[in-house]
Amino acid sequence: MKILVINCGSSSLKYQLFDMETENVIAKGIVERIGIEGSMLVQKVEGKDKFILNKPMENHKIAISFVLDTLIDKENGVIKSMDEIAAVGHRVVHGGEKYSESILIDKKVKDSINECSKIAPLHNPPNIVGIEACEELMPSTPMVAVFDTAFHQTMKKDVFLYALPYELYEKHGIRKYGFHGTSHKYVSEEAAKYMGRNISDLRIITCHLGNGASLCAIKNGESIDTTMGFTPLEGVVMGTRSGSIDPAIPLYLMSELKLTIDEVGNILNKKSGVLGISQISSDFRDIETAYKNGDERAILAFNIYHNSIKKQIGAFIAELGGVDAIVFTAGVGENGPITRELILKDLEFFGIKIDKKKNEVRGEFKEISTDDSNVKVFVIPTNEELVIARDTLDLVKNK
Amino acid sequence: MKILVINCGSSSLKYQLFDMETENVIAKGIVERIGIEGSMLVQKVEGKDKFILNKPMENHKIAISFVLDTLIDKENGVIKSMDEIAAVGHRVVHGGEKYSESILIDKKVKDSINECSKIAPLHNPPNIVGIEACEELMPSTPMVAVFDTAFHQTMKKDVFLYALPYELYEKHGIRKYGFHGTSHKYVSEEAAKYMGRNISDLRIITCHLGNGASLCAIKNGESIDTTMGFTPLEGVVMGTRSGSIDPAIPLYLMSELKLTIDEVGNILNKKSGVLGISQISSDFRDIETAYKNGDERAILAFNIYHNSIKKQIGAFIAELGGVDAIVFTAGVGENGPITRELILKDLEFFGIKIDKKKNEVRGEFKEISTDDSNVKVFVIPTNEELVIARDTLDLVKNK
Repeated sequence: MKILVINCGSSSLKYQLFDMETENVIAKGIVERIGIEGSMLVQKVEGKDKFILNKPMENHKIAISFVLDTLIDKENGVIKSMDEIAAVGHRVVHGGEKYSESILIDKKVKDSINECSKIAPLHNPPNIVGIEACEELMPSTPMVAVFDTAFHQTMKKDVFLYALPYELYEKHGIRKYGFHGTSHKYVSEEAAKYMGRNISDLRIITCHLGNGASLCAIKNGESIDTTMGFTPLEGVVMGTRSGSIDPAIPLYLMSELKLTIDEVGNILNKKSGVLGISQISSDFRDIETAYKNGDERAILAFNIYHNSIKKQIGAFIAELGGVDAIVFTAGVGENGPITRELILKDLEFFGIKIDKKKNEVRGEFKEISTDDSNVKVFVIPTNEELVIARDTLDLVKNK
Repeated sequence: MKILVINCGSSSLKYQLFDMETENVIAKGIVERIGIEGSMLVQKVEGKDKFILNKPMENHKIAISFVLDTLIDKENGVIKSMDEIAAVGHRVVHGGEKYSESILIDKKVKDSINECSKIAPLHNPPNIVGIEACEELMPSTPMVAVFDTAFHQTMKKDVFLYALPYELYEKHGIRKYGFHGTSHKYVSEEAAKYMGRNISDLRIITCHLGNGASLCAIKNGESIDTTMGFTPLEGVVMGTRSGSIDPAIPLYLMSELKLTIDEVGNILNKKSGVLGISQISSDFRDIETAYKNGDERAILAFNIYHNSIKKQIGAFIAELGGVDAIVFTAGVGENGPITRELILKDLEFFGIKIDKKKNEVRGEFKEISTDDSNVKVFVIPTNEELVIARDTLDLVKNK
């Protein structure tokens, strides 16, 4: 059975086609600059040359039709007809309070996702566009929504509520939702499997460190807290996002520097983080290079970044009442030995020790703690697409 | 030698007169509703009846002149003439980056305090008004400024900087300053003294929990981090302040709920915290009563409040690389056994254990950890006024 996984951004679209017998990726690709001049589709298939298609793609529907054409193309394709695609799994950023699990998409589900656009105006609209484009092109193929927020719906009310007037939650849904749920769930389960332990007996902290970054405290396999909140801006320092700051600062930027709401939002989301401090780059590889060359501002940016994550690990250990395993994943988490080392430095008090040599790993599953570390530390490549494909398969099978 | 300590708010003024030979408070009082109908001065002197003066007090100068009159009043006073006051110590909220210690006030110092009003518009202006009123009334008496921010000036740049565009720090002074410094310094020194240890060998976390609340991580007697930031809004949940929240929320309240900057500032500072969640009160005694009566929202408010402090303790332990002592102080810290118990619950992982019976203390110095706790836990009444008096004495002596 083959399942297509789709992740739609505002002007881009990523996809992977899975063979669920083997869980192998048969083809994967990306379409960029949808609706902008210079649209381009790039598809990779194991053992074949990269396939590049430069064609105008005005909207997501046209982009997806090119994806399907490419998948069934005689020369560059991997399947004979669209009918081989048993179902499509869609990544949806925000499921609000309604969805704690993946779900088969129908009219009601789409309405709910649309409703969540109010609190996720940047993320949900392109997700809906992708779903509707697929429905038009594959009207008889079941569609599944897999939510970034779903895994965190196990958080208790005294964790997800802010200390704000209660009616802001009741009337306007202002609360902590959390994101990257699919990733946190996946790597925590992989860690438990590797440890040969039942996840119900474990306290795990997962660090999803990409350009966006969040940590999750997991107890009994459930998210009990996470660093991102109402939006993906909260929490630890990120590539271009400030993470948590004094909430008086956005107000000060408006009242004293006379910036608009949008300008402040743009600064906090796009011009802050390690980019803002270093003024070098939002790409952690560039910061790492400058850091190694002794660049003062890169060192400053790295220290602030690592300190914010170190403190969050301490906070979650307190909340979990201890910790059995820490997992690093996503771009920086998988590929940043320096980052992992500096975050976990001087945490022997917590029984955390990493092995410098084992830590010299990039992009592969590895235990990097010392043999005598009380807390296991792992690097585990995330695979959100696989989780989406699995959830989709489960829902289609049971249909 | 006698020293007068003055703490000016926008419409109130607290004072204490110290005899520095014994460090005893000879008289203390409060003036409320300055510039508002119903101004009132209340003075307490050990062994005497409370003295109450109801007179119109249009401004701080008039209020301070009544304070001085009361202090030298034949019947209700405690000194013969104003000349007995060797110096006046003023609490000043914001010293910016300029002052890491208390200082004798001259024109330049006043200019600097005025300059800081830009980043502390609610706090510094009344402080300056108080200083100038005293100068006019006691032109030959030396005045000293003791800053709430000074103790935290030891924070390193990679702690006090936000992950914002660097120029917001360089050009506009947007950084973490921290507050309650006088209190954190005092109780940490008291703890070290009690432990018979040199403070330079200790890692201490001080929890100043009043209606405003902040925690401080202290290493070698120096503040290395604190929870309040650019303003006293950041950090843990407080009586009426939200503490740290997703910085996208203030923007959302403006863009979606169409609130103004001032309205949002008012909500976050005055209508949030345990008041906002519980909708009962900002007074922790009321919340405690409702909590004990099983009121659902009081329980929710308390859980959120305690969890935010628990997490912060974990974060600071990670940052300090361990902890030797935890100190609770200020209104709630000194008088809240439930609060202390719930904050430190389930922290045995960190070697923290409190003795339920010893913890039944209110408002007095006490070690409340168990004998086998690796981390000492103390309740220590704060005394910011005494620190101000001591600093003032030191500066006047060395003049």
